[in-house]
Amino acid sequence: MQSSTQNFSSTNELLNRRSVLGPAYRLFYDQPLELVKGDGVWVEDARGRQFLDAYNNVPVVGHCNPAVVAALTQQAATLNTHTRYLHENIVRYAERLLDLFPSGLDTAMFTCTGSEANDLALRIAGEFTGQRGLIVTENAYHGVTAAVAEISPSLAETAPHVRVIPPPSQFAGPPDAVADRFAQAVDRAADDLEAKGIGIAALMLDSVFASDGLYVESSNALATAADRIHARGGLFVVDEVQGGFARTGSHWWSFQRDDCMPDMVSMGKPMGNGHPVAGLVLQRHLLEHFGNNYRYFNTFGGNTVSAAVGLAVLDELERINAPTHVHDMGLYVSNALDRLAQQYDCIGAVRGAGLYWCIDVHDPSSDSASDARIAESIVNGMCHAGVLIGTSGIHGNSLKIRPPLVFQTEHVDRLISTLEQQCKKLRA
Amino acid sequence: MQSSTQNFSSTNELLNRRSVLGPAYRLFYDQPLELVKGDGVWVEDARGRQFLDAYNNVPVVGHCNPAVVAALTQQAATLNTHTRYLHENIVRYAERLLDLFPSGLDTAMFTCTGSEANDLALRIAGEFTGQRGLIVTENAYHGVTAAVAEISPSLAETAPHVRVIPPPSQFAGPPDAVADRFAQAVDRAADDLEAKGIGIAALMLDSVFASDGLYVESSNALATAADRIHARGGLFVVDEVQGGFARTGSHWWSFQRDDCMPDMVSMGKPMGNGHPVAGLVLQRHLLEHFGNNYRYFNTFGGNTVSAAVGLAVLDELERINAPTHVHDMGLYVSNALDRLAQQYDCIGAVRGAGLYWCIDVHDPSSDSASDARIAESIVNGMCHAGVLIGTSGIHGNSLKIRPPLVFQTEHVDRLISTLEQQCKKLRA
Repeated sequence: MQSSTQNFSSTNELLNRRSVLGPAYRLFYDQPLELVKGDGVWVEDARGRQFLDAYNNVPVVGHCNPAVVAALTQQAATLNTHTRYLHENIVRYAERLLDLFPSGLDTAMFTCTGSEANDLALRIAGEFTGQRGLIVTENAYHGVTAAVAEISPSLAETAPHVRVIPPPSQFAGPPDAVADRFAQAVDRAADDLEAKGIGIAALMLDSVFASDGLYVESSNALATAADRIHARGGLFVVDEVQGGFARTGSHWWSFQRDDCMPDMVSMGKPMGNGHPVAGLVLQRHLLEHFGNNYRYFNTFGGNTVSAAVGLAVLDELERINAPTHVHDMGLYVSNALDRLAQQYDCIGAVRGAGLYWCIDVHDPSSDSASDARIAESIVNGMCHAGVLIGTSGIHGNSLKIRPPLVFQTEHVDRLISTLEQQCKKLRA
Repeated sequence: MQSSTQNFSSTNELLNRRSVLGPAYRLFYDQPLELVKGDGVWVEDARGRQFLDAYNNVPVVGHCNPAVVAALTQQAATLNTHTRYLHENIVRYAERLLDLFPSGLDTAMFTCTGSEANDLALRIAGEFTGQRGLIVTENAYHGVTAAVAEISPSLAETAPHVRVIPPPSQFAGPPDAVADRFAQAVDRAADDLEAKGIGIAALMLDSVFASDGLYVESSNALATAADRIHARGGLFVVDEVQGGFARTGSHWWSFQRDDCMPDMVSMGKPMGNGHPVAGLVLQRHLLEHFGNNYRYFNTFGGNTVSAAVGLAVLDELERINAPTHVHDMGLYVSNALDRLAQQYDCIGAVRGAGLYWCIDVHDPSSDSASDARIAESIVNGMCHAGVLIGTSGIHGNSLKIRPPLVFQTEHVDRLISTLEQQCKKLRA
């Protein structure tokens, strides 16, 4: 536990001591932040500086949400045990979650991380179809287990049974053309798998194509892609780890912007507001073989505490009417970003919905269309000015804005004015 | 949240509603228990019945340990964020954990589950050696991710790059002979992998061979096996998810009964006393390639709350001087079980150390050497009599005793007297 009066020299000492974690861990910002407190949309560092958090999608109902902390505390002090005993919490949580999905998605399984949820989806798809072939987008990220890392081209080399396709893009023309082009890409990948004698297990798509640079348009690209994979006997698996729980507004799940029905939907990050809760909802018939051949036991997945926390997060999201609130906030953000884009040359293409936005940026004094260095400098400049955002995009040339969903208009105003200061600096 | 006055008819209703989890979930006992409260080594069901918990290894410092719940609550109310910001907790936790290992194991990485820790070990071993071949014991269980399930013969079919070997066994003669035989098995598996052109990545062993029926003798089987795999260029990975944190007494880690040095050690279950905390400690040089080629980010792994909980669990284990306490309790259990074995024909071979014991049982009126039905009936009978244990062994013919480490002699007395009642029933 930290005192918020700790000084900066101890932050440097901490940075040195952190080598105990080895070389695979990364830190944000040119001067790494030592955060010590969180409250709603605000965090505080060891020097006592306050930051508006416009980046973190995990504390979806606010850092240290009191109702969630109370539920966590109460259940942790009462009973923390696993799914081999009956307990009301996991059943009620499964029922509450499934109420947010179309009725064909009738079964819920619980893990601790989105990686585990996607990994389980792959196991079930493989068992159901008897095939291994998988199709993902070309800069997809689905997690860190071995099976999921090898279908995550943004992280690692893909395996021989994986085909990558270009994601749908705002630059690819009108919605119908985007959907058509994407469906054709699915077909080509499926053709190639079949030509190599690799049967098709599934198409797995991040519902917002986050690591591909964000695509949230209602072009029916998801629906047409689902049709194509189903025609090949493969499953349509939607990864809602980034897009889920009303992140893009209007709906609970980003796939719902299209008229499509996934076979499985994975969820993670915001599910427990920071507590390790993740899961998979799916159509029951997919488990017929898997459930007979394998038991599934995840020691902490869906334990009594995780389920209590998950329920409290759902309560809080419903209390703020998250789909509507986030939709409204999205319109407010959109208008503000449109104004900036008209006024400042450094702002390029803008895309997003609800409270997930990507902004391509570039150096107005340079010829290059976009620039990762400029994105980095804006993100660091905003951090120094007390607002946390991140970079994104295949080339790292986009700003990523993805705050807790309890963001209000005054927080958007602060975010936009701070971003505008950075734009002015670039023009100066 | 449950009232402990809930009646049994609602337990049946809950059982029906639980079908929302699909067919891959399992429950314990012929009449599944609906647990609603936990306190130390005791749990209570919805009918208000108290049970002595002699089975659960996760709540290692006791169900709802107040110091652990306090640490969880305090940190969850202060800040819950991830490893891309600096924080004292994860660094201090890594330092404290590594203090419990031999000095060559100098780096710690954090996940949420033991499955994820083993999965990460496989990724690192594959990257370091450039090979895929893995050797495990014939009824091993290392977890539920796709990569780990396929090296877990107790759960699923093993993959073509996996070889299984018989575990060391108390029935295989004197310690030297056991170690020799086991080393030869490693050599044969390695020969076979090499003959098939499959390079050797690692030998992964559960330090107590839990799902193989338990083997905790100090025969140096681990050390000789480690030498053999190292001679082939493979890594020696020890899975301490079951055996770790003083479970078998005397040492913090069960591998320490032998004079051996693992390259990597995975940990899980008891690490957070029920909070999803798991991890991997390893020799830094193994990460040279992995850390350059891949970033590692596990959203909840080693977050500020998980690390606070992990630290509180270590504090509690150190407060009770767990290695010594568990060693002493193990002697007390051992004496009591020896007496039962002498008095009752249904008790066969007994093996274990500290607070992990397996007891082979059989029907004295039958010719079969051991009997899964008898084990089931004893376990259910003890449950009805208020003591929780489980079954184990390849054939399900063993009783598994694996209580929280805060077990005291009076709890052992209660456990043994209840077991003795069951033995008397079988003799009657």
